[in-house]
Amino acid sequence: MRAPVYFDHNATTPLDARVLAAMLPFLQERCGNASSRHDYGRLARAAVDEARQRVAAAAGAHATEVIFTSGGSEANNLFIKGAAACLERGLLAVSSIEHPCVREPARELQRQGWQMHEIAVTADGCIDMTDYAALLQCQPRLVSVMLANNETGVVQDIEKLATLAAQQRPAGWFHSDAVQAFGKLPVNFRQLNAAGVHALTLSAHKLAGPQGAGALIVDKRVELQPLIAGGGQERGLRSGTENVAAIVGFGHACTLLVERMADMARLEKLRHVLEAGLIQLGARIFGASNVDGQVRRLPNTTYFALPDIDGETLVGKLDRAGFAVASGAACSSANPEPSHVLQSMGVDPAVARGAVRVSLGPDTSAQQITDFIAVLGDTVNQLRRLTALAG
Amino acid sequence: MRAPVYFDHNATTPLDARVLAAMLPFLQERCGNASSRHDYGRLARAAVDEARQRVAAAAGAHATEVIFTSGGSEANNLFIKGAAACLERGLLAVSSIEHPCVREPARELQRQGWQMHEIAVTADGCIDMTDYAALLQCQPRLVSVMLANNETGVVQDIEKLATLAAQQRPAGWFHSDAVQAFGKLPVNFRQLNAAGVHALTLSAHKLAGPQGAGALIVDKRVELQPLIAGGGQERGLRSGTENVAAIVGFGHACTLLVERMADMARLEKLRHVLEAGLIQLGARIFGASNVDGQVRRLPNTTYFALPDIDGETLVGKLDRAGFAVASGAACSSANPEPSHVLQSMGVDPAVARGAVRVSLGPDTSAQQITDFIAVLGDTVNQLRRLTALAG
Repeated sequence: MRAPVYFDHNATTPLDARVLAAMLPFLQERCGNASSRHDYGRLARAAVDEARQRVAAAAGAHATEVIFTSGGSEANNLFIKGAAACLERGLLAVSSIEHPCVREPARELQRQGWQMHEIAVTADGCIDMTDYAALLQCQPRLVSVMLANNETGVVQDIEKLATLAAQQRPAGWFHSDAVQAFGKLPVNFRQLNAAGVHALTLSAHKLAGPQGAGALIVDKRVELQPLIAGGGQERGLRSGTENVAAIVGFGHACTLLVERMADMARLEKLRHVLEAGLIQLGARIFGASNVDGQVRRLPNTTYFALPDIDGETLVGKLDRAGFAVASGAACSSANPEPSHVLQSMGVDPAVARGAVRVSLGPDTSAQQITDFIAVLGDTVNQLRRLTALAG
Repeated sequence: MRAPVYFDHNATTPLDARVLAAMLPFLQERCGNASSRHDYGRLARAAVDEARQRVAAAAGAHATEVIFTSGGSEANNLFIKGAAACLERGLLAVSSIEHPCVREPARELQRQGWQMHEIAVTADGCIDMTDYAALLQCQPRLVSVMLANNETGVVQDIEKLATLAAQQRPAGWFHSDAVQAFGKLPVNFRQLNAAGVHALTLSAHKLAGPQGAGALIVDKRVELQPLIAGGGQERGLRSGTENVAAIVGFGHACTLLVERMADMARLEKLRHVLEAGLIQLGARIFGASNVDGQVRRLPNTTYFALPDIDGETLVGKLDRAGFAVASGAACSSANPEPSHVLQSMGVDPAVARGAVRVSLGPDTSAQQITDFIAVLGDTVNQLRRLTALAG
């Protein structure tokens, strides 16, 4: 049997074979603890240092600004809780479409006495600038707005948002979860930092690197309390024996980003074909409603719903038909509620329950897109016949 | 050139080739996110579930009591901070020989208004029962005492300590960092839990598993606040995309523990030969001062100092001579202070600065021990001649 077509690259990406090859020595003979002071340890330390250079180079940061974590969720928690712990309680703001690993720590701070504001988004999924301007008048100490949304793929103008935030006196810290953007769009911390972005979250397993590695890229002026205290690794900001193989894989995946990025124009064309097919089937594409092209989306992501078709059911049918797609963010698939992202965009819950995400990757071919549209058409007809019969 | 002999298994262990073989499919074609609802996701979820069963079986726990983390440091932080966050501020106690990833979170709680007591140890490195009894009179809400110490290898009678703690009314939570014990001694959570142990910390990379995976085994009566909040993985207690390959490796390493444990008697004999040789060279063995055998130590660990020989210097010389040993806990090797474990045992700092740890593993042979004693003898003579010349 053929392996199902993988259209869920925003959930996690297959590990690139070259990345695995770079990791393997650290899963075999190079078995040291990076803190050990012998040959094995020094080799591990050198590998971690080199990976740090690679990640920094790909993100336009300095190596000393990279804090390795076990992944994006940890990096987001580290920033939100870690920065808040060093500030006086006050106002924090996160967009209403953030990933749960930003929203939940923010809510935790709220329970601890912080004021929390969820920044509204427009029907297109972009930050509502009126709400944002009003927020800035209240001088938030922490602001977190994701660079690109995991579900819709909608890209925020982070540089503009940070510039506005930086004009306030006193200005707070501005963080952006770049987990979905990094590897699909150019991300340059130096440039963003100049505009007023103080920290970025990255994850390896969204860009052909391994699960188990991520990073917080952080301006050294930001005081942080570690989430994991102990042996003092990562300048005391993230203790624990380094996962050397995963960090090496993260570094290697970053070096391959040039190639990955070069493929994005091709994916965007395939996505265009896909969406033309979806629209012919009567689909509504979320985050693409602004027809004059003002809304930027990740080139690989399509988030859609078909009238009267349940998203969960459709994902199950497509899975059996050989296509792996998502009915929402993978991380919240345990949650039967319709997507909070779509709800924030004002999408009717009945429509939101139909949401299906297709996210393409380097292994996606034009033939797969054609096949997918055909299979989707059949599946939808089948489901509609069943509904008609039941009705 | 021959690879140096690896005598630092307490810092990290080489990954067992069979464990790597079990991990590889999840670094290749089985690339799913365990939260995804398609074939790739279900395969990943099933693998995580199976690993959970394997870890639980090896630790004498129920699978639902296993919370996977990125490692031991995270699991210790999760318990100390996570349990404290759900309790009223009060007294917490950790032994004075805990790993920094227990001590540092405890100190953080102290800064937040908790009272913190460091439980004293005897000259042998065992919990001082007088101090412990006095502590229990003060009704600590949280107690953490490690099962076996990473430096000396000294094993505490956790069952007895927990039983005493459980007799207090109200009794607090009792946690034990079992990172060094698990895989070298029988550890049974059911039995320990019956005595009053509420949580155990485990780490994969100390038992031939990969770096990047650990677990908190926890009694479900313990209310915990997650350290990493977000997507709700691990029953909401540890969010973040699961590091499937590392978790699978952890599970597989646990299944191989029977074999690892069966080798411990052989290692203990080799350790005996090693220590006889060390004593002939004039070494003092830490934690072994109680000659009547009352002090239990991990069978693979020797922690010693030679008169007037600096530990760091000796480790460097031995490294160049082809033996990888540690001058202290790897995690605190950046710290030039003499070991806090030895200081707590009342060892003179001048002596403590000479501390060197040898920790054996399944690949250790009798010949390596003989060679090591010979090389150590030569090295010590050389260093003593240099000191005599300098004097």
